[in-house]
Amino acid sequence: MPCRVAILGASGYTGSELLRCLLLRRSVADDIEIVALTSSRRAGCQLSEVLPQFSGAGLPALSLWEDVDWGAVDVAFCALPHGTTQEVIAKLWRHEGLKIVDLSADFRLHDLAMYERWYGKAHATPALQPHACYGLSEWNKDRIAKSRLIANPGCYATACQLSLLPVADRVELGTVFMSAASGVSGAGRSLREDLLYCEMNENFRPYATGGHRHIAEIEQGLRWRLKELDKLEADGKVSSVSFVPHLLPLDRGIMVTLSAKMLGGESVDGLRRVMTEAYRGSVFVEVLGEGEVPSLKRVRGTNNCLLAVCEDRRDGWVVIFSAIDNLMKGAGGQALQNMNIVLGMEEETGFGGGALLP
Amino acid sequence: MPCRVAILGASGYTGSELLRCLLLRRSVADDIEIVALTSSRRAGCQLSEVLPQFSGAGLPALSLWEDVDWGAVDVAFCALPHGTTQEVIAKLWRHEGLKIVDLSADFRLHDLAMYERWYGKAHATPALQPHACYGLSEWNKDRIAKSRLIANPGCYATACQLSLLPVADRVELGTVFMSAASGVSGAGRSLREDLLYCEMNENFRPYATGGHRHIAEIEQGLRWRLKELDKLEADGKVSSVSFVPHLLPLDRGIMVTLSAKMLGGESVDGLRRVMTEAYRGSVFVEVLGEGEVPSLKRVRGTNNCLLAVCEDRRDGWVVIFSAIDNLMKGAGGQALQNMNIVLGMEEETGFGGGALLP
Amino acid sequence: MPCRVAILGASGYTGSELLRCLLLRRSVADDIEIVALTSSRRAGCQLSEVLPQFSGAGLPALSLWEDVDWGAVDVAFCALPHGTTQEVIAKLWRHEGLKIVDLSADFRLHDLAMYERWYGKAHATPALQPHACYGLSEWNKDRIAKSRLIANPGCYATACQLSLLPVADRVELGTVFMSAASGVSGAGRSLREDLLYCEMNENFRPYATGGHRHIAEIEQGLRWRLKELDKLEADGKVSSVSFVPHLLPLDRGIMVTLSAKMLGGESVDGLRRVMTEAYRGSVFVEVLGEGEVPSLKRVRGTNNCLLAVCEDRRDGWVVIFSAIDNLMKGAGGQALQNMNIVLGMEEETGFGGGALLP
Amino acid sequence: MPCRVAILGASGYTGSELLRCLLLRRSVADDIEIVALTSSRRAGCQLSEVLPQFSGAGLPALSLWEDVDWGAVDVAFCALPHGTTQEVIAKLWRHEGLKIVDLSADFRLHDLAMYERWYGKAHATPALQPHACYGLSEWNKDRIAKSRLIANPGCYATACQLSLLPVADRVELGTVFMSAASGVSGAGRSLREDLLYCEMNENFRPYATGGHRHIAEIEQGLRWRLKELDKLEADGKVSSVSFVPHLLPLDRGIMVTLSAKMLGGESVDGLRRVMTEAYRGSVFVEVLGEGEVPSLKRVRGTNNCLLAVCEDRRDGWVVIFSAIDNLMKGAGGQALQNMNIVLGMEEETGFGGGALLP
Repeated sequence: MPCRVAILGASGYTGSELLRCLLLRRSVADDIEIVALTSSRRAGCQLSEVLPQFSGAGLPALSLWEDVDWGAVDVAFCALPHGTTQEVIAKLWRHEGLKIVDLSADFRLHDLAMYERWYGKAHATPALQPHACYGLSEWNKDRIAKSRLIANPGCYATACQLSLLPVADRVELGTVFMSAASGVSGAGRSLREDLLYCEMNENFRPYATGGHRHIAEIEQGLRWRLKELDKLEADGKVSSVSFVPHLLPLDRGIMVTLSAKMLGGESVDGLRRVMTEAYRGSVFVEVLGEGEVPSLKRVRGTNNCLLAVCEDRRDGWVVIFSAIDNLMKGAGGQALQNMNIVLGMEEETGFGGGALLP
Repeated sequence: MPCRVAILGASGYTGSELLRCLLLRRSVADDIEIVALTSSRRAGCQLSEVLPQFSGAGLPALSLWEDVDWGAVDVAFCALPHGTTQEVIAKLWRHEGLKIVDLSADFRLHDLAMYERWYGKAHATPALQPHACYGLSEWNKDRIAKSRLIANPGCYATACQLSLLPVADRVELGTVFMSAASGVSGAGRSLREDLLYCEMNENFRPYATGGHRHIAEIEQGLRWRLKELDKLEADGKVSSVSFVPHLLPLDRGIMVTLSAKMLGGESVDGLRRVMTEAYRGSVFVEVLGEGEVPSLKRVRGTNNCLLAVCEDRRDGWVVIFSAIDNLMKGAGGQALQNMNIVLGMEEETGFGGGALLP
Repeated sequence: MPCRVAILGASGYTGSELLRCLLLRRSVADDIEIVALTSSRRAGCQLSEVLPQFSGAGLPALSLWEDVDWGAVDVAFCALPHGTTQEVIAKLWRHEGLKIVDLSADFRLHDLAMYERWYGKAHATPALQPHACYGLSEWNKDRIAKSRLIANPGCYATACQLSLLPVADRVELGTVFMSAASGVSGAGRSLREDLLYCEMNENFRPYATGGHRHIAEIEQGLRWRLKELDKLEADGKVSSVSFVPHLLPLDRGIMVTLSAKMLGGESVDGLRRVMTEAYRGSVFVEVLGEGEVPSLKRVRGTNNCLLAVCEDRRDGWVVIFSAIDNLMKGAGGQALQNMNIVLGMEEETGFGGGALLP
Repeated sequence: MPCRVAILGASGYTGSELLRCLLLRRSVADDIEIVALTSSRRAGCQLSEVLPQFSGAGLPALSLWEDVDWGAVDVAFCALPHGTTQEVIAKLWRHEGLKIVDLSADFRLHDLAMYERWYGKAHATPALQPHACYGLSEWNKDRIAKSRLIANPGCYATACQLSLLPVADRVELGTVFMSAASGVSGAGRSLREDLLYCEMNENFRPYATGGHRHIAEIEQGLRWRLKELDKLEADGKVSSVSFVPHLLPLDRGIMVTLSAKMLGGESVDGLRRVMTEAYRGSVFVEVLGEGEVPSLKRVRGTNNCLLAVCEDRRDGWVVIFSAIDNLMKGAGGQALQNMNIVLGMEEETGFGGGALLP
């Protein structure tokens, strides 16, 4: 029997990209059935009235999430805005057969105080948070497989952690600087003047210099990783890392350029080997060879992460690049990968096409 | 047993897009095996050395086409430059079990004099030309199914004919004006100064105002269609149509904006009905409803053609829009569709994903 | 004494482009003083708070237009939205020393019924309309020079008329089809979802297929021109012409691709000569030689219009291209040109730089 | 009498941008006469045959540099490729009345060994090198004013040094990491496959990770600055700094994102004050206030450098942004600024227009 899937918030960039992936998969295998698409503003409409690319896809009409028969759904993807998700998921949670992959930030931070500090309000469902599993697929597979509520990581948080976690105990964390650049779709389909075509076209600019929320996920990941390695200081503190995002004049893609000082005895080649070893067996993460660097176009439309570990001019330092498609590995693609893990399927099931080039 | 496929000229935009489609299909079904990829300049290399997006895809190394064991190939896609293809295909032709889908222009024109006039040299294999079948899938399916040599149509020729053929006997052909715009990938991966990023970015310009070669295909299609309708004049002459291409600052997509005067008694609504009827049952061609118009992003990465039939301000005239992805329905996608027809499979086999949006 | 200039609505794309031109001019000559910039929403702020590129330019703070001392202003540029301008200008009109260049559509149509039909409401100041002079600089210079209220033409209307007026009596107007494409800035800084970066990037699409308002200006121009040539029919009727706009994925520029059947006895070379003759002496309009075509990048940031008259494949037909920068010759640049005419200065005063390339 | 100016290598992006600036200036003031434009490949042609945007500008025909009467030239701008310039300038040098502004890298490095190491060959005119003055206008004005041979800095070197020199003695140089991103015009009009439109559009990628040549200029600048401050170590050594360039999908602009650890006792606000003080009186360099960051579109087409000094999450660290137009302040604009200094004119003479926005 096919897995019955619903998407809450199907008309945003994240939700529609996830749907694109699901339709590709449905065209290939018979293991997926899309049973509900919700939208609070457009309930009653067809999704194709909002997003004409889905015309003819044979999809259910948009409905209110309250009207869905959740007992007849196996997996719910929640692509609602941050802050509105906790209470919705608290209601879905009662359906014990339901697996939930949440693409919002609402369940990503295990420390409730940290959530409050970064998101500016108290967590609405603190009792539910401990049940959430952070969905960085390559690093948390076993827990994801057993989880009913998966908090899909942020786009920057995915690209940064995939590059940093394997070497977290081999660099001086206090020297880590991550200059990141994202395509405009990372900001969602928001009606903001600074996201108008004529404002971002032929433009490039830093933003959120006061501190981007994905830093909280990255530092949580570092703490978790050091603890796993038994290298966490007694006080549980981890050095802050620096992260500066920029907006790029293109649709999709994230590039992280990371600079760090290596700990004594480490070498660039050594770090590349460690990185390569860390992702051996991973179908989506590739560590490039010496002399190679990633480009955003090469990951466009794929669930891949390309990593490169390169020499720095300064002895003892290293430069690492990490490239993903923010809507795929940074959102909908990783959500699908997590669904595969939850369902006990091969991670790459339903992914197929390579990068759309040119 | 899977169909054994080869691509001649795999490193151009057309060849690599075809390969992307084949890999997507291979990931889905087990009915395709890629047995050879040829390149005259890079034989001996891996394709991924030239196009790193194909690293890890498990592809055969690039070889010379002369070195391929064509007896062990079922379908050859030929994505070589115009003019160099005729003699290559003449050699492949001897392998009777081999089906050939040629993406060049070398076999598209049945009239050898017409070929010579538009391409500036005599056809090199005139005896072979009569065996070629013009591969406009929706209009020539029965012949394609029985053919061993399919001449895949040009990108503009596809978009124009799909809009024009259904109404060829309902408009005054002498009034047909087609203003077309194509993404830069239509020009291929040629090292031309006018195709450099800084030349085409933020630019838009007409070209080939002296007459684009795809006009020959369009007029051949019109003649064939009128003959089929028994409306060809006794002298076999068809009014010239006008076609003006422009280059757009984007990667892929073709939009044709067609203006024509309708014959007496015809109406815009009537033409839309005729158009809709013509493509009933077609999986890739969609005629939009009144008030809708296509956009290039909506067909990006798909094999679809979107058509719209709209009112003109002038009584008795009509405006028709036709949108395709020039690398898909305009090249590699239609080639794959034709392979499906030749192999007796459902036309949409192996196509899956919707448009890459955003 | 320098000319005292004000801009109403300085923070839109049109107003700010005009200001950019005025600042360039001020840096060159001492004949301009910018005395007022108005904004209804941001009165009291500095313009540089909204548009930081103007920081340090030594500009007056934004004010309400009602608070400006109009008796101390020589030229007012009105860059307010359509429909809100008529009543504002009616108040400014009382200041007899004031020259007004209106960049909105509110005074462009002399026929009040036509205005009502295209803009969906009655003209608010019908008594004032007869005083307005249509500001297509190259065609109306003498009247502009004597006018106190100049209705600056629409962007498409400028590009279309510059190509069509010289040959209005040499083509069959009923066959005129204009396929036009504009950069996104033509839509202004409107918070519309379809103008977000990710919606228009890598996209191209027709719009306003039901009839764009600039058609009214174009047909008014044709009527005026035929009358001037004494070729207007007795009933004053002029054939409708067809105009289909598209949106391009770039910031600025308009290309019109015009198809028409020539009247008996006319030739493409002849039309090119007529066109060349029509703009002899014009500093901003250039008719390209045989075989040349314009490109949008070549006019970017300039007040130039490039025209090309080309062969059509159909005997007796012609293709004409017209390229402008929609924010310059299509808005702010032509407004400045009109100011120069009104002030009795050389038309090119204060224009200088060539196209920004690349 | 106007200054007689020549450009060697007028058809590249750098030379043509310089010419655009000179034409703007000529249109404003009568102090410039363009007496020669050279091109080795196109001598005898009009520049407008290669670059049609210059048609009608009243320019001299392209000539061989050997055929120019250098005795009748006051200022020569040399925009030839690296490596071919030294011997040309050696010949020009004999004309004692001639001032030379060289936009190539051939005379930027005072240390001949350093030149050989970074450019892979011995300096061809070592005796001439000591006469060259490094033309970073804001930091070397007095020497530029007295020089006959000015080595215009590299584009990245300009953006990096303008941000780094004011604080060179206040940060730990060994911690300086500069992640930079440049528009594609920085690579010049080279026929390289990776610079084709379809390769760079929708793409973003690092390059030159093995070490970009502009690093040599930056470290030379740091050494010079520390010496000036009497803070150079006895051995003359300066810590290496790290610099990683990326290519952006836009025409023009460079953004440098610099991370550094401050020396004890320094603060972000303090560094911002130092920076602001350093450029007090500079007409082209602006230090933004707290909370503001630059964007590339805001400097497009201008000679401005925008700097911002921002908090880092890590105590004791700082992030600095530096934005320029690579063809202006990074090439042709700074060359013109240097000409103004050499001629004893106001630095801003002939610069006028603000950023081209949108």
